[in-house]
Amino acid sequence: MIKEYISTNKDRFLGELFDWLRIPSVSADSRHKADVRKAAEFLKEKLAAAGVDSVSISETKGHPIVYAEKIINPALPTILVYGHYDVQPADPIDLWDSPPFEPVVKNDKIYARGSCDDKGQVYMHVKAFETMMKLNLLPCNVKFMVEGEEEVGSDNLGTFVKENKAKLKADIILISDTALISLEHPSITTGLRGLSYMEVEVTGPNRDLHSGVYGGAVANPINILCSMIDSLHDENGKVAIPGFYDKVAELTASERLALNKAPFDLDEYKKELGIDEIKGEKGYTTLERTGVRPTLDVNGIWGGYTGEGAKTVLPSKAHAKISMRLVPNQISSEITELFTKHFQSIAPKYVKVKVMAHHGGEPAVTQTDSEAYKAASKAFEEVFGKTPIPTRDGGSIPIVALFKKELGLDTVLMGFGLDSDAIHSPNEHYGVNNFLTGIETIVAFYKHYAKK
Amino acid sequence: MIKEYISTNKDRFLGELFDWLRIPSVSADSRHKADVRKAAEFLKEKLAAAGVDSVSISETKGHPIVYAEKIINPALPTILVYGHYDVQPADPIDLWDSPPFEPVVKNDKIYARGSCDDKGQVYMHVKAFETMMKLNLLPCNVKFMVEGEEEVGSDNLGTFVKENKAKLKADIILISDTALISLEHPSITTGLRGLSYMEVEVTGPNRDLHSGVYGGAVANPINILCSMIDSLHDENGKVAIPGFYDKVAELTASERLALNKAPFDLDEYKKELGIDEIKGEKGYTTLERTGVRPTLDVNGIWGGYTGEGAKTVLPSKAHAKISMRLVPNQISSEITELFTKHFQSIAPKYVKVKVMAHHGGEPAVTQTDSEAYKAASKAFEEVFGKTPIPTRDGGSIPIVALFKKELGLDTVLMGFGLDSDAIHSPNEHYGVNNFLTGIETIVAFYKHYAKK
Repeated sequence: MIKEYISTNKDRFLGELFDWLRIPSVSADSRHKADVRKAAEFLKEKLAAAGVDSVSISETKGHPIVYAEKIINPALPTILVYGHYDVQPADPIDLWDSPPFEPVVKNDKIYARGSCDDKGQVYMHVKAFETMMKLNLLPCNVKFMVEGEEEVGSDNLGTFVKENKAKLKADIILISDTALISLEHPSITTGLRGLSYMEVEVTGPNRDLHSGVYGGAVANPINILCSMIDSLHDENGKVAIPGFYDKVAELTASERLALNKAPFDLDEYKKELGIDEIKGEKGYTTLERTGVRPTLDVNGIWGGYTGEGAKTVLPSKAHAKISMRLVPNQISSEITELFTKHFQSIAPKYVKVKVMAHHGGEPAVTQTDSEAYKAASKAFEEVFGKTPIPTRDGGSIPIVALFKKELGLDTVLMGFGLDSDAIHSPNEHYGVNNFLTGIETIVAFYKHYAKK
Repeated sequence: MIKEYISTNKDRFLGELFDWLRIPSVSADSRHKADVRKAAEFLKEKLAAAGVDSVSISETKGHPIVYAEKIINPALPTILVYGHYDVQPADPIDLWDSPPFEPVVKNDKIYARGSCDDKGQVYMHVKAFETMMKLNLLPCNVKFMVEGEEEVGSDNLGTFVKENKAKLKADIILISDTALISLEHPSITTGLRGLSYMEVEVTGPNRDLHSGVYGGAVANPINILCSMIDSLHDENGKVAIPGFYDKVAELTASERLALNKAPFDLDEYKKELGIDEIKGEKGYTTLERTGVRPTLDVNGIWGGYTGEGAKTVLPSKAHAKISMRLVPNQISSEITELFTKHFQSIAPKYVKVKVMAHHGGEPAVTQTDSEAYKAASKAFEEVFGKTPIPTRDGGSIPIVALFKKELGLDTVLMGFGLDSDAIHSPNEHYGVNNFLTGIETIVAFYKHYAKK
């Protein structure tokens, strides 16, 4: 019956999602402020149409939060669904095969910015709710909290959560913003990395100089920045910031064994990425490197002349965006401070260095022996015919740690994306089957969780 | 009489130059192709108006060359004036205090892109020629060859010179595209550095990746590029490319002594640039580092997300523009090849590296015992009341070596700019007095040179 309803309404479900994807809700870019709001309004309408008791758009200092609820019986369990309707910038636009905000289906995949992360995954919840309402199957209460600032650090969600603790009262948080191993190997994410995202500015001379007249006599801030960045890793691929690993929880031998049981084909991995060799911290496998080890990456760098042709400039400034992924029990604010102090301390006297923090988030680990995890596991078994594997995910959903701290609630991470979906990249996509199967699995979760 | 003519016509001279500066003849940017031609047409008209026998615009594969001549008597010496009417890009535009192509005079300085490099300096020659024509003082023949590709490597000038050897027959080349120490300390440039300008591309994964999902397991091309760039200098500030110094002519002790006699105040230098410390090759003074030592600078770097806010991307590609200044007897093509081989050889197996050469030019040294140098020296003495100091200039005018090779001609570098003129930078400027005194000094040079 559920399968049939989803199948019958498939085209409408996709059509609605496409309308949502057409709204370029890029939270990082102030030029898209109105689009972000438009995406919130769209979601509000669709939640109302699906049958919630109430839905509102709550203002924040940044982008608004969409909040809705359906309370069928206060005595029943309550699921709080969290997601985000904002998306990453689409740059570099010229690498997209089709326009990022004009969704198309190719090879049964929806191509568009946000198709997977996270509009597509949020919309599964809206349609799962609609399905349960239409079929009279909703077995418990549900609350929706969908924010518009996840891609820029969820700066204002913390305040919203703190100010609305009573309203947000629930039994479990349910989030679809992660990936499965594959449709053949369903999995549930049980760990997420935290994040510290920094921006640095290195200033040499007070103006751009002619590299002929001054080159060789004045420190070049790009060369200095490169040298400073290079020094942030040692020869074993470890992050060379004093104190960086002090609080890192080392896995036990059995935990490592369990983690490495997930299906992983290194040759396939390399082939899919087009690389000859992988690179990472010595002594750890790829699954460990992305799942349980902290890292440091330069996300962007710029300085000097970057246009067409040649300009012989010795620039005044060079910049980089540098982020660190954190694992239990690192604390984002501490790592941000360690980075700031270290980066300033290694600045040579030839230059001036500014370090700014963009945003951070705490790492999180979820339990595999909880009622909620068991319900999720049963839901996957029912729909996929296989027991899902618990995995550690390299990405960050800082809100998971926040929910635990502020609301005392655990989270179930039922994600239906794939690592190959190119989220945050050109040609982001999301499988039509992932979307439809996701809806079915979410409905199954409600059923099993309500029985707990 | 000469002084009076210049003074009387000062406003018109400046007005004409301003009209020329308003044409954004940026040779590196194909969007300005028509402007580059417009600047050539402007020069053609002004040379015709000043009284040349003939003037033409010669097509090349790139931007055209303006050629003119005035032959008063084939038995008299002939001066071939070289210059360029193209300018550097104006980026970063937002650091200009006034629009780069709307010249203004502030504190007796002309602010505009090209005001000094090289339209302002070329226009001194046009007006010096006009002055001599109007006052019936032209003492010898003169030819003008002004190109539109100097800022992008003079790619097509070599062909023009080779194909027009008879037409270009002359006794000396005269160029104003360098700097004086100051109006109080006149100087003549006797050495120029050569150039190899490269662009590199480092490719990691075949697409931009989510830095959470892949960070720590896949080599980040920005980090790798930084590491490669850092390795291009050793701990003594020497360029760490095998063979780089093999052909470098070391100065004798007396040559070094002479070079370091030029007035130089390190504290003033640091203050003017806003830096606490200088940096360069160990064992050499600042004047040596910029005058007689080869160098390597990153002129531009870019990769990943460089927009507003934060994007957690592990990019597919990172890029840099890297140039080397060369000294006698380094050869640009050899250094380009050494760089290319070395940069490819240090690429780790995690990435793919592409190296492209933009343009190059040979270093040059001019003689201080020639008739032409002596005439220039006398001209400065007459106008400035001081004997000019011979200096080595860090910049490159590759054409000087080409003229020697193809035409067998020596060059006199009578530049009237100042190192502080911010050429190639925002707020490029040129002193009104430098411009007017330059015209007077050029007229004096013709007089002394014709007497040789």
